[in-house]
Amino acid sequence: MSLNQRDMQFQVFEVLDAASLLNRERFKDHSSVTFEDILEMSFEFAKRQLEPHHRLSDTLEPQMIDGTARVLPEVKAALYAMRDAGFFAAAADEEYGGLQLPNLVWNACQAAFMASNPGTSSYAFLTVGAANLIRSFGTDAQKETYLRPMLEGRWFGTMCLSEPHAGSSLTDIHARATPNADGTYALSGRKMWISGGDQDISENIVHLVLAKLPDAPAGVKGISLFIVPKHRVTASGLEPNDVALAGLNHKLGARGTTNALLSFGERGDCVAELVGAPHQGLAQMFQMMNEARIGVGLGGAALGCAGYVSSLEYAREREQGRLPTNKDPSSPQVNIIQHSDVKRMLLAQKALSEGAFALCLYASRLVDDHGTHPDATVRGEAGALLDLLTPVVKAWSTHYSLEANVLAIQVLGGYGYTREYAPELYYRDNRINPIHEGTNGIQSLDLLGRKVAQNGGIGMTLLTREIDGDIKAARAAGLNDLSDALEAAVSVAHSTTRTLMGASPDVMLANSWHYLELLGHTVIAWQWLNAARVATLKLPTASSDDAAFYKGKLHAATYFTRFELPKVALWGKLLGSLDTTTLTMQENWF
Amino acid sequence: MSLNQRDMQFQVFEVLDAASLLNRERFKDHSSVTFEDILEMSFEFAKRQLEPHHRLSDTLEPQMIDGTARVLPEVKAALYAMRDAGFFAAAADEEYGGLQLPNLVWNACQAAFMASNPGTSSYAFLTVGAANLIRSFGTDAQKETYLRPMLEGRWFGTMCLSEPHAGSSLTDIHARATPNADGTYALSGRKMWISGGDQDISENIVHLVLAKLPDAPAGVKGISLFIVPKHRVTASGLEPNDVALAGLNHKLGARGTTNALLSFGERGDCVAELVGAPHQGLAQMFQMMNEARIGVGLGGAALGCAGYVSSLEYAREREQGRLPTNKDPSSPQVNIIQHSDVKRMLLAQKALSEGAFALCLYASRLVDDHGTHPDATVRGEAGALLDLLTPVVKAWSTHYSLEANVLAIQVLGGYGYTREYAPELYYRDNRINPIHEGTNGIQSLDLLGRKVAQNGGIGMTLLTREIDGDIKAARAAGLNDLSDALEAAVSVAHSTTRTLMGASPDVMLANSWHYLELLGHTVIAWQWLNAARVATLKLPTASSDDAAFYKGKLHAATYFTRFELPKVALWGKLLGSLDTTTLTMQENWF
Repeated sequence: MSLNQRDMQFQVFEVLDAASLLNRERFKDHSSVTFEDILEMSFEFAKRQLEPHHRLSDTLEPQMIDGTARVLPEVKAALYAMRDAGFFAAAADEEYGGLQLPNLVWNACQAAFMASNPGTSSYAFLTVGAANLIRSFGTDAQKETYLRPMLEGRWFGTMCLSEPHAGSSLTDIHARATPNADGTYALSGRKMWISGGDQDISENIVHLVLAKLPDAPAGVKGISLFIVPKHRVTASGLEPNDVALAGLNHKLGARGTTNALLSFGERGDCVAELVGAPHQGLAQMFQMMNEARIGVGLGGAALGCAGYVSSLEYAREREQGRLPTNKDPSSPQVNIIQHSDVKRMLLAQKALSEGAFALCLYASRLVDDHGTHPDATVRGEAGALLDLLTPVVKAWSTHYSLEANVLAIQVLGGYGYTREYAPELYYRDNRINPIHEGTNGIQSLDLLGRKVAQNGGIGMTLLTREIDGDIKAARAAGLNDLSDALEAAVSVAHSTTRTLMGASPDVMLANSWHYLELLGHTVIAWQWLNAARVATLKLPTASSDDAAFYKGKLHAATYFTRFELPKVALWGKLLGSLDTTTLTMQENWF
Repeated sequence: MSLNQRDMQFQVFEVLDAASLLNRERFKDHSSVTFEDILEMSFEFAKRQLEPHHRLSDTLEPQMIDGTARVLPEVKAALYAMRDAGFFAAAADEEYGGLQLPNLVWNACQAAFMASNPGTSSYAFLTVGAANLIRSFGTDAQKETYLRPMLEGRWFGTMCLSEPHAGSSLTDIHARATPNADGTYALSGRKMWISGGDQDISENIVHLVLAKLPDAPAGVKGISLFIVPKHRVTASGLEPNDVALAGLNHKLGARGTTNALLSFGERGDCVAELVGAPHQGLAQMFQMMNEARIGVGLGGAALGCAGYVSSLEYAREREQGRLPTNKDPSSPQVNIIQHSDVKRMLLAQKALSEGAFALCLYASRLVDDHGTHPDATVRGEAGALLDLLTPVVKAWSTHYSLEANVLAIQVLGGYGYTREYAPELYYRDNRINPIHEGTNGIQSLDLLGRKVAQNGGIGMTLLTREIDGDIKAARAAGLNDLSDALEAAVSVAHSTTRTLMGASPDVMLANSWHYLELLGHTVIAWQWLNAARVATLKLPTASSDDAAFYKGKLHAATYFTRFELPKVALWGKLLGSLDTTTLTMQENWF
């Protein structure tokens, strides 16, 4: 199995205390046992249904035949099994047949799926995200028509934002929606990079499409959100709705998921339903995007962990060379896990991937607090903190889990470069994560240009409060070195933030990426401090297996603190100087 | 074209002063014009013969059919054209039909080939390396039989070191050579990861194989070197020599080059010729390996530059979004090269790839000085400096050019993730370079465990002398900030070296990778300082195109100094503390 289930339990139950959610109204029918059972089921499902065809669905990517994207039978079978097991509705309301699982627990399950086969899993996650959007903003009729078949896994969903000329800049989309006499709209335009945009798996596909109404104001304030099914519902059943597959993109990885160029309304017969109020499309879509951004971060972290587990397994088995202190060539070779430089590459993977994973699950728990905490103040604060952290969750996790995947390949040496071993596939699958749902550069602009200063900087205030509290707890557990290092990083984060906030927008934003890294490293060190605290407190009474696990956590926390965290000071110095190297570089100098 | 020819001229002629080699005996028939012509020819050749089938030879990788590796007609055609153009003998002795080009100029030509199509080019480079080895250590008869057809490009060469169970640890090879009555040897064993190990391009394949004689002492001191042709030369022509293709590896990239598992002597009929003295094989092979290590570094740098050029081209053309200071959505979009964060990603690529390129060409020039300088002291010093720098050239260049390739993909966003654009292919091709010819981890052990202390630390002494001289020259040109920063880095390098040399071998070597990075960053900053000095001196009289180019060089030097070089202090602090985090991590804690 490509994820360490013990680590998952540690993160979900020991660090983030999933059981404490049981007293919330929404989760009252659950117990720790149901949480553990569903997690166990997910791991089992991932192992039996998803992992076996991961490589195959990369080798035999979807084909466009007779205007339809055709996917492998194995991909279909796995999704039908996922549907039959009820996973599409795991976090949904009981009213719609859902299990009402906490986001924290459900995302832990999703991580198992994504580590085992992101290509196949993505169809389900996109469907769940689209369903949530309809649940939040759709009319009762829309919910009745679309929500139930989606949560039953019979119809799949997509999000259609980008167009060939408008990727990061949604302001510039061309898709148009013209009112019909019956209250529906006629949609026309082309949408690019649509994951799951076409397939022959589900009975229908529900596209959530951004388009502009004829009277739309310029810019993002003129974007509306529409439901555009591939087949529309008529009295006589499902009828084609003039959504054509114009082409499939041929990707580096994540090939199990189709990625399509779609053409809407070529024959003038594409019927769309407006979701919510006109011109509110982008704000509404952001619900799905924010959810998806956490999902992308989580997917990155999961693949980072998968690469770690896979290279760890190899390093335990592969014999090669001898330790520096042994010069006898006739002595047996050692397993490469005994070489310090291999341990470095494994520790780095562990520190980066499990750190990212911890942050993603922490954010997932904030989603629960934001949605279900009985105290409105706590709900609001969780929302504000989540807002601040979402770009970090997305960008840091995907950037550094990809770095971990590079190391996984390296641990395997020549074998890592072959398609017979998993790490190269994890890398290729993961490479999309720093790009989609807003590139990591865009995330850093969102963080520094919007989130940090938003609502009087409440996000940063709350973050500091949380970290300070955890540092106190860590000190009480005797973790002074790690605490000191984190405290220093927090102080650099604050002074750097103040300096940048005082700069002109162009100077400030020219430094956005390293700012995101600076805050990201600080936040990950905080996650490791919490892991180290829990490990320290549990060690004295732990079984010998658990003790080894906890010692590993402590050692990885030390690794992150010594090898990674010092970069915060370096970035702080660079950004504190209001560097203009990138800003002043001229186009014709390149 | 995937390399910037202007930059190549700058590096070869303006910084490294190729013309100054003209007074050497070996190069006396050349002129600056012949150097420039051959460079021009190489770029033209790369563009016409190599680049066009780069993607195709990745998509349609070699197949094993009837026991032979079959390659694309396009690959063959390009190599026949390379042969006909005389490129195989470009740096070889006149006596064997060679042009006696300086290594510096020839490596610049090779960089153009490797940036355009590393898969196809590799056959030629391996052949040249193998030919050089026979030239150095072979008998006259061996030279007569093998050298000429190889330099004529009719026979290709390979190096056969690794075995399935012995990759990094050559001590543990099993291949055996038993003396025959006629002075030849019967070879048996399996060799893994053999680039160009089989193909249907050349008339014959000359394998240079490491194997052990029956009386061999244990360890690397018992390894001998053999010539093992695929077809042996008999009175009646070429006859099969019992070298069987056991399988082809299926790789992440570099697919144009076959990569084979070979089985020697399965039928007891594999005839080998000993090269040089018995048990001297590894020392001899190191000539080819050192040459190959510089070649691998150069290949990495070339692909880093190719990704840079390709993403730069995209950034100049792709319109997306507006600058932070413009909030008017009805204004036209800008080319993404105007966004600071895109400039950051381009500058980083430029600083890393062109920096690596500069170091590789500097090392190539050291090869010339080592081989052809009239003063024996200078020859010796060039050799000692080259010895020290070779692991840095190999590992730093491949590690950081790969990081550049990640950024190239990122600049293209979603398009970068598709196989319609070059960056993902550059990345996949380049991913082998940190692995083969000794993994980067092995390079760092070689650097810190052998090279630094070798011959009383003469390499470090010479390096310091060279850098100090160049800092003086840079200060004279007014480059005080860059000089100060480099001087500080050199000082950290020295103190870190001293501290590590005082530690136990296991503590010292546990920190080898970051030591290589520390020294590598210092050396690259030095290369950038030299580029900045030349640019500064030429700026006042430069044409406007040249002025833009020189300003770009200065800006990239600033970028490297501000964004990358400070990491030296960070690594210095970590290593100066004789960190034991990796060393003390236990296997069962992972």
